[in-house]
Amino acid sequence: MPNCFGHSFRITSFGESHGRALGVVIDGCPAGLRLSVAKIDAALARRRPGTSSLVSKRREEDRIEVLSGIDREGTSIGSPICLIVRNNDARPEDYDAFRDVYRPGHGDYTYHRKYGVLPQSGGGRLSARETLARVAAGSVAAQLVQSLSPRTSVTAFVSAIGPVECQNFAPGSVAWEMIEQSPLRCPDPDASEKMLAIVKEARDRGDSVGGCIRCWITSPQVGLGEPVFDKFEADLAKGMLSIPASRGFELGQGFGASQMWGSDHNDSFANIAGELRAPKNSAGGLLGGISTGEPINFRVGFKPTSTIASKQQTVSVSGEECVRSFGGGRHDPCVVPRAVPIVEAMAWLVLADHLLRARGDRCDP
Amino acid sequence: MPNCFGHSFRITSFGESHGRALGVVIDGCPAGLRLSVAKIDAALARRRPGTSSLVSKRREEDRIEVLSGIDREGTSIGSPICLIVRNNDARPEDYDAFRDVYRPGHGDYTYHRKYGVLPQSGGGRLSARETLARVAAGSVAAQLVQSLSPRTSVTAFVSAIGPVECQNFAPGSVAWEMIEQSPLRCPDPDASEKMLAIVKEARDRGDSVGGCIRCWITSPQVGLGEPVFDKFEADLAKGMLSIPASRGFELGQGFGASQMWGSDHNDSFANIAGELRAPKNSAGGLLGGISTGEPINFRVGFKPTSTIASKQQTVSVSGEECVRSFGGGRHDPCVVPRAVPIVEAMAWLVLADHLLRARGDRCDP
Amino acid sequence: MPNCFGHSFRITSFGESHGRALGVVIDGCPAGLRLSVAKIDAALARRRPGTSSLVSKRREEDRIEVLSGIDREGTSIGSPICLIVRNNDARPEDYDAFRDVYRPGHGDYTYHRKYGVLPQSGGGRLSARETLARVAAGSVAAQLVQSLSPRTSVTAFVSAIGPVECQNFAPGSVAWEMIEQSPLRCPDPDASEKMLAIVKEARDRGDSVGGCIRCWITSPQVGLGEPVFDKFEADLAKGMLSIPASRGFELGQGFGASQMWGSDHNDSFANIAGELRAPKNSAGGLLGGISTGEPINFRVGFKPTSTIASKQQTVSVSGEECVRSFGGGRHDPCVVPRAVPIVEAMAWLVLADHLLRARGDRCDP
Amino acid sequence: MPNCFGHSFRITSFGESHGRALGVVIDGCPAGLRLSVAKIDAALARRRPGTSSLVSKRREEDRIEVLSGIDREGTSIGSPICLIVRNNDARPEDYDAFRDVYRPGHGDYTYHRKYGVLPQSGGGRLSARETLARVAAGSVAAQLVQSLSPRTSVTAFVSAIGPVECQNFAPGSVAWEMIEQSPLRCPDPDASEKMLAIVKEARDRGDSVGGCIRCWITSPQVGLGEPVFDKFEADLAKGMLSIPASRGFELGQGFGASQMWGSDHNDSFANIAGELRAPKNSAGGLLGGISTGEPINFRVGFKPTSTIASKQQTVSVSGEECVRSFGGGRHDPCVVPRAVPIVEAMAWLVLADHLLRARGDRCDP
Repeated sequence: MPNCFGHSFRITSFGESHGRALGVVIDGCPAGLRLSVAKIDAALARRRPGTSSLVSKRREEDRIEVLSGIDREGTSIGSPICLIVRNNDARPEDYDAFRDVYRPGHGDYTYHRKYGVLPQSGGGRLSARETLARVAAGSVAAQLVQSLSPRTSVTAFVSAIGPVECQNFAPGSVAWEMIEQSPLRCPDPDASEKMLAIVKEARDRGDSVGGCIRCWITSPQVGLGEPVFDKFEADLAKGMLSIPASRGFELGQGFGASQMWGSDHNDSFANIAGELRAPKNSAGGLLGGISTGEPINFRVGFKPTSTIASKQQTVSVSGEECVRSFGGGRHDPCVVPRAVPIVEAMAWLVLADHLLRARGDRCDP
Repeated sequence: MPNCFGHSFRITSFGESHGRALGVVIDGCPAGLRLSVAKIDAALARRRPGTSSLVSKRREEDRIEVLSGIDREGTSIGSPICLIVRNNDARPEDYDAFRDVYRPGHGDYTYHRKYGVLPQSGGGRLSARETLARVAAGSVAAQLVQSLSPRTSVTAFVSAIGPVECQNFAPGSVAWEMIEQSPLRCPDPDASEKMLAIVKEARDRGDSVGGCIRCWITSPQVGLGEPVFDKFEADLAKGMLSIPASRGFELGQGFGASQMWGSDHNDSFANIAGELRAPKNSAGGLLGGISTGEPINFRVGFKPTSTIASKQQTVSVSGEECVRSFGGGRHDPCVVPRAVPIVEAMAWLVLADHLLRARGDRCDP
Repeated sequence: MPNCFGHSFRITSFGESHGRALGVVIDGCPAGLRLSVAKIDAALARRRPGTSSLVSKRREEDRIEVLSGIDREGTSIGSPICLIVRNNDARPEDYDAFRDVYRPGHGDYTYHRKYGVLPQSGGGRLSARETLARVAAGSVAAQLVQSLSPRTSVTAFVSAIGPVECQNFAPGSVAWEMIEQSPLRCPDPDASEKMLAIVKEARDRGDSVGGCIRCWITSPQVGLGEPVFDKFEADLAKGMLSIPASRGFELGQGFGASQMWGSDHNDSFANIAGELRAPKNSAGGLLGGISTGEPINFRVGFKPTSTIASKQQTVSVSGEECVRSFGGGRHDPCVVPRAVPIVEAMAWLVLADHLLRARGDRCDP
Repeated sequence: MPNCFGHSFRITSFGESHGRALGVVIDGCPAGLRLSVAKIDAALARRRPGTSSLVSKRREEDRIEVLSGIDREGTSIGSPICLIVRNNDARPEDYDAFRDVYRPGHGDYTYHRKYGVLPQSGGGRLSARETLARVAAGSVAAQLVQSLSPRTSVTAFVSAIGPVECQNFAPGSVAWEMIEQSPLRCPDPDASEKMLAIVKEARDRGDSVGGCIRCWITSPQVGLGEPVFDKFEADLAKGMLSIPASRGFELGQGFGASQMWGSDHNDSFANIAGELRAPKNSAGGLLGGISTGEPINFRVGFKPTSTIASKQQTVSVSGEECVRSFGGGRHDPCVVPRAVPIVEAMAWLVLADHLLRARGDRCDP
């Protein structure tokens, strides 16, 4: 179970950064879903490194190979879908220099203490390359959700890098093109430019910088999520905090709500065209852990990547303090833009799982 | 599974606010644990309403009845531990007035849409009274963790109410008495006084106010948490976002980390008295999802309670807009102080689960 | 998880034989199910001891108390259903004599080795009294299945005691009254009489005797069960082998099939009134682990109870060999008739679980 | 979950018979296990078809490719182990003739009704080729168990084919070579010869024949298995009944126990060389669902394969009755010998899972 996510739409991720392949098994995808492998490849392309001078120079084609679960016509057949991506451009030698010391900010030390072995080269299981499995599975989840609930969509974008925040967009008001035309996936052109300057500064200094991602799930079905532990926001929070480098999650007004009066925060209900609505939506689309149908609106905060060129104090595997630089690998000064498709993938996975789970809600569905 | 939390130390919560009883079954508690029922009762007393003029006037004795799993001497015997608390002071009639309309900010509407039935009186399964099950189970978890890892402790307190924030305490620097002597569970006396003024203002206006809770897990074992989905922080985030009214979770520097340079954020490692340490601990005690041994340090944000006396616009069950006041029940102007033991309970539950799970980490343990 | 059964309709059993209460939490019962508590009580009455001179003299009223999950009108509300039965007639003193030695054929020894504690008096968690939780939950499962699939029914009866076997009934050909009018729950009056003689002989000799139960699930929905590990028969086998004293499980022709030619065993398909049927039904209603719609037909074998009056050689807790009689408690010379409602309960639980799971089979259900 | 087996040592099987690959992900294998891939290949070689004139002529090399979870030195690293086998000799055209009719005794019909699609060619997910995943994972389980409990071993052999039964061997008394030297994996040479005649007769007639497998787990650790639902025998029964074509499971004396007196069946305990033993071992090594340390001794019955050359009556996908022969594919007249390594694999999987689960039994292990 340590490598599973979801209950009814359950994925198991496997593979290490410099191993033979990374992959995912999706257990629980209903039969009869028309799946586009091209869409999965397109999703992977969005998280791929090497697409600009600002990001890691590792070049992997990252094309999906479907091992099972889909017939020749591209339809799911009810059996587990296994997707793999080969690791072709792994360069373990880039990392061999690091294997005698614990890299500050990485999980080398904790992994070693836990399992008695150092993580494999390139971070092994701890590498962000593992998220490839999530993005592939997330694309299948997206295709499932959109076949069951065609109006539902998920949109994430970079809302802050370092101290620069983008303007306050209303949920659903940002087109995909506005996001993708920015090298940093920030739909506010002015903010995007300022962010770019910060990322370049980080790169030039051999440093890194953090940022935030905003995500909206628009037109979700009403009734997703469970009232107690498996609240929709609880599963979202778990999914988001499982992304490498994430450090915070907020729903709706988030920590801002902690400063508000109830009379200001509460959403009035209205009957709009025969539908119950809560247009103010301070609740971020969820009441009692269950979706209202309003946009589910959340934010994820990311710390700066820990791999930086400047020298840092650390301790060797044999216990001696030393000072080291860890700049040889291929790393990003700011990973936040590449985390956008990962945030979306985790959101789709939570949606797909709860859509299937909701089939058990009532005797007479 | 919708009412379960944890894998190896798994709890199932049951019961409605105005039903016969609330309770919890703990499946997976190892045999041979000396359990103090008095400690469970004491934990429940901390979350009990009715202890000051500032909180809900519902009076429940909330004494635990142990139905199974513990022998006459108070030792766990390896079978599931079932703990229940009877509901004696339920007053369904207080709530009958609300059953024709959806209360703004509550889950009445979403529950109805999901299950085809309105929640039972008093919020039914959505009532914060459900958290009693978590606090009871959390006390068992605490007793288990402290028997396996005696130096580990969990401390939570109110760090903000409305705009008032308490001073910045170093993890582990706050004694339990400092917290409990404050009616609002804030260990900073000046801040506590200002918070009190705000809560009284909320009460007098028939309004409510939000706040934040800071929590520290000190001296956790090294190696807790899994590298991918079940990162320790991911399970914490899920636990915290499953608490009613919570809206945000942050680990370590949290959203603040998103504004930092990597060189400022990264924790150097040092060899202190033969132990690898990371004293700055920006990481909040977790690297790669796995505990370093440094304090695990997180914050949870809560929205103001949605039940307020002032009139609000809403929609009736039959779809008509109307204006209503929902002041008759027994409610708190600020629930945050009562959430302190709930945050601690969820932290103990995550600890207990990961301590047991870690027994499978290695072939040769 | 050690005390759970099922995935989508999941029960957690708790309680020891001489503890305060036994009970079960049902997590996953859909909302809107009209539940009759009287039916649960009637199911419990069928497994109750003390109804004839042939069975254990322990007298428990075994009335269900519903702690949660059902509203005042008796309808399930989507939250976990907790059912408990108090232990009133527990006589721990009857068993105190046994606590220094391991009883042959009981789990005293293995429980002690596993958990480091002896099972509680009366067998604790190992007592057949635990099956009360299954029968209560099984009644809820039955009511759920019959509301979703009204033609489905489950019928079990005693088909053999010692060497006496009843005649070969065709699936579905035995009325409930034929079974219940026999003190041994065998619908063949001649066989029943001979069986009675054997049970009396066992009682008179202070001995015990084994037997078999035949069970039919008639008119199950087509398509229940999963093709690989969670084949319907695999889940049935697990459920049946989890009943105390069971020693074997057979589907359809069972071990007899191992002696057949394929050409004799294979079921031809026919189109009968527009429906695909397999009237010979050697397969016992399941192909590829999935129900065909024909009766699911299986048999469970039970060993004789291990508690007998005659002296037996054993070993004390401190390791000394000794000879002992264990006749003081209240025990049955033949438990097989009382296992009939337990077999039915486990079958209903597997049915309910797979009915809910099947809701995830297809995109377009 | 439909394609998972086990809790703490959990496998997920994937792949279809004529798809690109079959494989398995093992989640929960502890780190630090020295794994021999050659042993996995050897295990697969034992279940491979095409090794004699008596069995399916499909020729697959079936070499394992390790995608993840094992480092360059062959040691497990705590992350999921993914093993795949490519399908090279798939001949979908052999099966295309069958795709318009339901094959008697196969799951074509039930799969179609369940998922709305026909199984893929070669049986797709229902093919016995799926068991390759179990055998590969079972080899890892075996290597884990033997590293934790070196004296434990698992031995299975063919004990009956059609009406021919082998002599009654005492548990542990049969050497591996005695089994493997028989083309039918029956260690009794006389019986083996008679069985061979029967299998040849079946082959010559275009028919098939069933049989039984006996399996012993010798020197298991004491204390494996849980007292209620997850009894060791319940998990074994589930594992065995999930093997294609299995129809029955018996522990110890099995159905024979149903004909015995308790005084004959009960095992006396003795103190042998300071250890509690139950040498008669009618219980088959399990009391109260928990291992005693005596050999766990069980039997599995298999029906004759349903694919036979002779003409059978069936129904087409469009509902018309017809008569057909299904002899074109590559099939065995008797699959029982090839099921021997599968039975062993499932036994190892249950052992590995319960060994890891037992680590949670006690506070102070």
